[in-house]
Parts: sequence; structure tokens; C-alpha cells
Amino acid sequence: MDLAKTGTREVEIERFCGSRWTACTDLMVREEPLEIRLDGHPIAVLMRTPGQDEELVKGFLITEGILNHLSQIRKIRSEENRMLIFLEDDVRVDLGRLSRNMFAGSSCGICGKATMEAVFQEFPELTHSLMPSTDVLLAAPSKMRNQQSNFERTGGVHAAGLFNMDGEITVLKEDIGRHNAVDKVIGAALGRGLDMSGQWLLVSGRVSFEIMQKSLAARISCVAAISAPSSLAVDFSKSSGQTLIGFLRPPTFNRYS
Amino acid sequence: MDLAKTGTREVEIERFCGSRWTACTDLMVREEPLEIRLDGHPIAVLMRTPGQDEELVKGFLITEGILNHLSQIRKIRSEENRMLIFLEDDVRVDLGRLSRNMFAGSSCGICGKATMEAVFQEFPELTHSLMPSTDVLLAAPSKMRNQQSNFERTGGVHAAGLFNMDGEITVLKEDIGRHNAVDKVIGAALGRGLDMSGQWLLVSGRVSFEIMQKSLAARISCVAAISAPSSLAVDFSKSSGQTLIGFLRPPTFNRYS
Repeated sequence: MDLAKTGTREVEIERFCGSRWTACTDLMVREEPLEIRLDGHPIAVLMRTPGQDEELVKGFLITEGILNHLSQIRKIRSEENRMLIFLEDDVRVDLGRLSRNMFAGSSCGICGKATMEAVFQEFPELTHSLMPSTDVLLAAPSKMRNQQSNFERTGGVHAAGLFNMDGEITVLKEDIGRHNAVDKVIGAALGRGLDMSGQWLLVSGRVSFEIMQKSLAARISCVAAISAPSSLAVDFSKSSGQTLIGFLRPPTFNRYS
Repeated sequence: MDLAKTGTREVEIERFCGSRWTACTDLMVREEPLEIRLDGHPIAVLMRTPGQDEELVKGFLITEGILNHLSQIRKIRSEENRMLIFLEDDVRVDLGRLSRNMFAGSSCGICGKATMEAVFQEFPELTHSLMPSTDVLLAAPSKMRNQQSNFERTGGVHAAGLFNMDGEITVLKEDIGRHNAVDKVIGAALGRGLDMSGQWLLVSGRVSFEIMQKSLAARISCVAAISAPSSLAVDFSKSSGQTLIGFLRPPTFNRYS
């Protein structure tokens, strides 16, 4: 299976470089939910790149300790974004335990949720979008880096920063987890009673669908990332009304919505 | 709270550069599980960097749509690696729905599991460790990059490769999620009946505790990463008997266990 075909998608974007905008086509990695059902019971949803689902699910079932051996699988049926696993008759899996432990996936940029319905929250879409000036955007990455603790010397940390429209940092947080850094920023801003609808978020790494959704929950209308957005993040931003900036690497960045 | 203090830890490592080894001290980012309980019910475990737990949990509860407003929280009590959230009497949270949907965390390098017990699987430790030659290690990153599909042009993809002791790639997979790439490699290797105990794994990004645990489930005894390991990955490798290599960036790499 050629993942270059199934795993990517072309999107129309606007690229800013130096002082001008160019419309162009960008190749994006696809990110879509895959629901895993064991003898009919939904046990997890992984956010994954489509195309090698059977290998993914086999590996997942073994490395998460749900099955001991692939021979316990009688057959696998693939539906769109859903893998149905049927076990041999003599295989016992304690679904009650999985459920009690709220077992869930462990992909990165993940939703560890067991059903599609649980993945997509329902937060109202925005009525207006927001776009900082290009100067403010281009100055932000070095500002964030300068304010990070020496903690970043470890090389293993993600940062998220909330900026106002003048480009000042109002909240900056770090964590080993991308989503945690965003949750910390939002938790701190909420705790201080900040109105986030007039501010924008910068994340140090990539931006997944879930980061867009978390930002929407906090009414943040513009999200920028140093690295790539996923295809689902782009789709989400278009329907939520959020502005999405990627590859913010001065003097260049991409606008996806 | 100064995250540079609470969020990092010094470890003794061996650094290889050019042709010689040096013992030195490295600063690592800490990764520890945080269990969140809502009125006594465990709802999620996040793998996070300790130090800003209250902000993390507040943000998490709002951005995951569990609460609408922080005023719904009556008090928060912090225990070691556990946050107890007590809600105001008139707040209704459908714990049954959370449980049915196996709601779980969404950090990166996550376990979306609701209890500590669910996070740590019990795979038997290894009886022997494995260490490829330094030449084989140093040649691996460019080999993996060369074999990646043009898919990597998207800039948003993780790769994982299984190598034999001669440095040949036996399985290579890519995905938007770090853990998915590893699960795909292991699923494909199992499907082909490969014995992984004599092979080693290279991952393109960072290495978390969960990647070590997934590798152990497949009996992989050496894991190398282009980027940083987390503190829990190091701890795990020491108790499992796995060899852990980080920052594999020719002509240099670090050995953590």
C-alpha cells in the first residue's frame, strides 16, 4: 500500500513570504479517526493516517496487551474508518475491564475515545475570525522561544503561547505533551478570567484537529503553528470559522483558512 | 511555578561522538502520569510534565467539554500524581456517558486511560539486552529517511523503522501519530512472523514511556530515537532491560540505559 497516495491530500493555501502573498497548492498528511470494534464492541478510536489500517490495528491490539497473539483473531473486516475484529471462539477478552478502565488509544494527537461520537465535541462555531498582522505573526516564534524556561534545553518539550493582537504574550506554558501545553494555557487564562476571543494561540509543534477543537472550546479564533497542520485540522478550521496558520518560520508562513 | 525546577531531572548518560564514549550528565524532561478524579470517579490519566497540574486539569475539563465553566468546580485537592476535583452540588456530569464512551486524555505520548493501573501493562522483562554497533546506529537515520515515501514532504509525519543487527531495514512505517507508526511496524512484523527480539527500532521523533512499553510487548530489546527520550522512558528501559538510545544525530548519540 503506497502511503504517499492514501496518506496525503492536496489543499489550496496562501503562502506569505517576505512581503507578499501567493496562492498555491500544498501537500498535507491526512488525519482521520479509525474506530476499532472487538466482536462488535467499540474499544478505541485512533486518529491515524489512512492506508495501513490492518497493520495498525494488529499492532495496537498486541502492544496494548488486549490480545496475546494474532492467532486469536478469526477475521478482520474493514469498513470506512472502522475496523471490525472478530475473535476466535475460545478467546476471552475482558471487555468489562477495558470499559471500566476506559481503555483508549495512544496515538499522538490522539483522542483516546471509543466511539466516533465521543471524538467530535459540539462547540458552537465562531461568528467572526481573527488574523494578527503579518508583523505580529512573524515576530512571535522568537518571542516565545525567548520566554521559554531553560527547560527547552532538554529538547523534549512542547510550548504553547497565548498572544494578544499587539503580539504580546499573555500566557506561556510548556509540557512534554502538545495537548497538555494547550490545556495549561487555556486553564491558566480561564483561571485569570481572560477573554480569549480577542487573542491567538501559537504552538511550537504541529497542529492536529484536537488542538483546533480545544481552542474552539476556549473561543480562540486563530491558531498558528511552527510546524505542519493535519488535514483534519484544516477541515475543522474551515467549519469552525477559525484562522489556521502553519509553518510559521520567518520570513514565511502558510494560511490554510 | 518554575517548570525548570519541577519539570526536569538530571540523569547520568554515556555520549558517543565520533569514535569515543564520554560519561556525562543530561537534563531530561519529566513525564509522569496524572490521574484525574471527578467527585471520586477516575476519568482520565494524562502523561504530563509535573508542576502546573491545576492549570492543566482546569483546561482539560473545559476543552474536553466535561465542564462548561470553572465555577462548576467547588474545590481541587492535589495528591501526588492525582488531582481530585469536587464539583458544586448542582452540577451534573454524566459519568455514565464518559464511561460508556471510554472518554480519555488527549496528551501526546498519552495514555488515554482512566486509572494508573490501566497505564502500566505487565509484559515480562527481557533477559538479555541488545546494542547494535555504533556504525550501524549512525547509518540508520539517513537510511530511514531515504526509504520514506515522498509523504515526508508534508512535514507532518512520523516514521518508525525496524532494523536488523546488520543495519538493514526490515519494516518501515509512517503515520501522523508517533505511536501509530510503531504499532504499524509491530503489526506488520507480527503478520509476517518476524522474530523481533533480535532487531531494534528507530523512531523519527521523541521516545515516550509508551513507545518503550509497546516495544517490550513485541520483545524489541533496543529502541533508538532521533530526538529526546522522556524521563519515564529512561526509567522504564532500566527496569525492562531494554537499551535506549536518544538524540541519534550523526556523529553523535546518547545512551540512556
